[in-house]
Amino acid sequence: MDIYRQALLLHQEQQGKISTELKGDLNTKEDLSLVYSPGVAEPCREIHKNIDEVYRYTWKGNTIAVVSNGTAVLGLGDIGPEAALPVMEGKCCLFKRFGGVNAVPIVLKTKDPDEVVEIVKQLSPTFGGINLEDISAPACIEIERRLKEELDIPVFHDDQHGTAIVVTAGLINALKLVDKKPEECVAVISGVGAAGSSIIRMMLDLGISNIYGFNSRGILNRNEKNDYSNPLYRELSEITNKDGEDLSLEEAMTKADIFIGVSVKDKINKQMVKSMKRNPIVFAMANPDPEIPYQDAREAGATVVGTGRSDFPNQINNVLAFPGLFKGALAAKATVINEEMKLAAAYSLANLVSQDELREEYVIPSPFDERVANAVAKGVAEKAMELGVVRRIK
Amino acid sequence: MDIYRQALLLHQEQQGKISTELKGDLNTKEDLSLVYSPGVAEPCREIHKNIDEVYRYTWKGNTIAVVSNGTAVLGLGDIGPEAALPVMEGKCCLFKRFGGVNAVPIVLKTKDPDEVVEIVKQLSPTFGGINLEDISAPACIEIERRLKEELDIPVFHDDQHGTAIVVTAGLINALKLVDKKPEECVAVISGVGAAGSSIIRMMLDLGISNIYGFNSRGILNRNEKNDYSNPLYRELSEITNKDGEDLSLEEAMTKADIFIGVSVKDKINKQMVKSMKRNPIVFAMANPDPEIPYQDAREAGATVVGTGRSDFPNQINNVLAFPGLFKGALAAKATVINEEMKLAAAYSLANLVSQDELREEYVIPSPFDERVANAVAKGVAEKAMELGVVRRIK
Repeated sequence: MDIYRQALLLHQEQQGKISTELKGDLNTKEDLSLVYSPGVAEPCREIHKNIDEVYRYTWKGNTIAVVSNGTAVLGLGDIGPEAALPVMEGKCCLFKRFGGVNAVPIVLKTKDPDEVVEIVKQLSPTFGGINLEDISAPACIEIERRLKEELDIPVFHDDQHGTAIVVTAGLINALKLVDKKPEECVAVISGVGAAGSSIIRMMLDLGISNIYGFNSRGILNRNEKNDYSNPLYRELSEITNKDGEDLSLEEAMTKADIFIGVSVKDKINKQMVKSMKRNPIVFAMANPDPEIPYQDAREAGATVVGTGRSDFPNQINNVLAFPGLFKGALAAKATVINEEMKLAAAYSLANLVSQDELREEYVIPSPFDERVANAVAKGVAEKAMELGVVRRIK
Repeated sequence: MDIYRQALLLHQEQQGKISTELKGDLNTKEDLSLVYSPGVAEPCREIHKNIDEVYRYTWKGNTIAVVSNGTAVLGLGDIGPEAALPVMEGKCCLFKRFGGVNAVPIVLKTKDPDEVVEIVKQLSPTFGGINLEDISAPACIEIERRLKEELDIPVFHDDQHGTAIVVTAGLINALKLVDKKPEECVAVISGVGAAGSSIIRMMLDLGISNIYGFNSRGILNRNEKNDYSNPLYRELSEITNKDGEDLSLEEAMTKADIFIGVSVKDKINKQMVKSMKRNPIVFAMANPDPEIPYQDAREAGATVVGTGRSDFPNQINNVLAFPGLFKGALAAKATVINEEMKLAAAYSLANLVSQDELREEYVIPSPFDERVANAVAKGVAEKAMELGVVRRIK
């Protein structure tokens, strides 16, 4: 039986993948009077007196919403909220299984970014954090930006930042291995949408000296005569390609130490990898078929190769990031997830691979490495506290 | 330690009362590929082809939202969404524990009925039903009515109908006991807000011949010169007090077989119970202190007395209704919860007390009678199927 048939059966047998469960007993009149009326009135009164107590007496402090409108689901596109629900439930499973974070899937009917923002704001008293998921670009960027400004709980768009954190962790270790400093490196990135934009920002945070960004029409170039219809492209053109060079992907690759692919299969070939600087690093993450097959990239001389696939070494899987990230943010009662916290997550993740273990086929831990979420959570929580972006409850 | 202190500790130790949990295992790469990418794409595709398949492959078919804006919480009033969260979590515990229904608390920031309607509509793809809770009257009536019209999933405002169903069940059995037909009976009801209005409608469904409704200013009377500022009062005045009599509560009580109280303590006294028709039925449900103390009502000659309290016989507790009601509605894939289904719930509940067991102190089962939810669910599901108000999935 193939995996798709198996998945269908699993979803049907279980009628979905998550449930809500009681944290304690409810078997007697006494239990009932504590869980519900009249006892429940007391936490209500306490929270009414001091709204921050909601973190003490309710699920809020350990529960997030996974919010989508189904406009950009996996590779399936705009399939609508109902059809997106299995992905959101799956994501909630990952949050719980790997991060111990309660997570509720919420799929919305609307495609209007203003409405998504408004609804999430209205819902926000219920949840300790918001994970945005599978919302089409560029709306997703605008939605995340506004929610970050307008809410005082962590908001995180995993499609943008989840992969970016893991890529950054992989780069930190790969650069150690090839003995290069970020400041000496040039990167080429194919795909400058939601994920690409966040990867670009994190590579700059890391100190990469220059980045050439490519979309399907060519290189991002701030000197280009054509206006960009997509405001994201304009923004990214301002922080990439610092000399405004007009290069083809082939030409840019000859200048690159690092290639990052978040685009489509067969975007690059062996010849292009061969043309890169010494000890090339190639993270080719198009799913299910990478920008260049793992084996081809290795044969062409790439020192470190990562893909999104679990059947090759160095799987760049965002499940390494988001469960621990929210676990840490919630533990610290962080009011945001910011750039510094994401970078802390990347370093914590990278540091799980010790100097002794580090090798070409192992720059990033496995998703089932049980240390991952706690390590990421610790790094994120400490950074939040250091920055003071936390709620202090008396 | 008093119950309030105990409740506070319980809420703090558990950090709230409900969690989200995985329905299956997630321990291997294979599990991951079924629960999440790539396997999850298959149920997504199936639902995209036929939206009703969302009931087959996701949690929707067995999950509801418990929605409030915290404007009328218990007896505490308008305490806001955060302070309402413990009650909503408690309600979700009851749905799960007694009905096996997954339930998610959702508290909203807005007090605007239009916004509540809009947000719930936008959220509705996620859930198989909506239980509205602790929203102030008359907004709650309007919100429920509009959501019923505009959504194709069951919508139920428990504050209105939960108690009404249990009262109706209690009346069915109490009338058997005193050997009266509903058509021969006159009822007085004190309190004509959310709960009172639904009780009035269900008593009319049952066949009660005339009902006198009282609010704090006196009797509802369609001939009254004063316009009612509250549209609910005008509506109820059209279906109660059919001869437009101008009576005091004392006067109305002398005509009554049944007294229903959903108002405030000490609303009636022993003298008024004594003045009622033979074998009075008194359901005095003000919380925590009923309209007349249980013992006083009995001493004054009431044959059957029910209250909201667990420390006296015949506890009229809405937990007898809502878990089974949604369990049945979800099992049948009902598109509504309508009057007939509520009445079916009441009869199913009443029928759990056999003719042999029926006595003055036992007209209604206990909340911990494990047969309750299944009996109610069966009655509700059968009625929905009989009426054809169900989703048929090929």
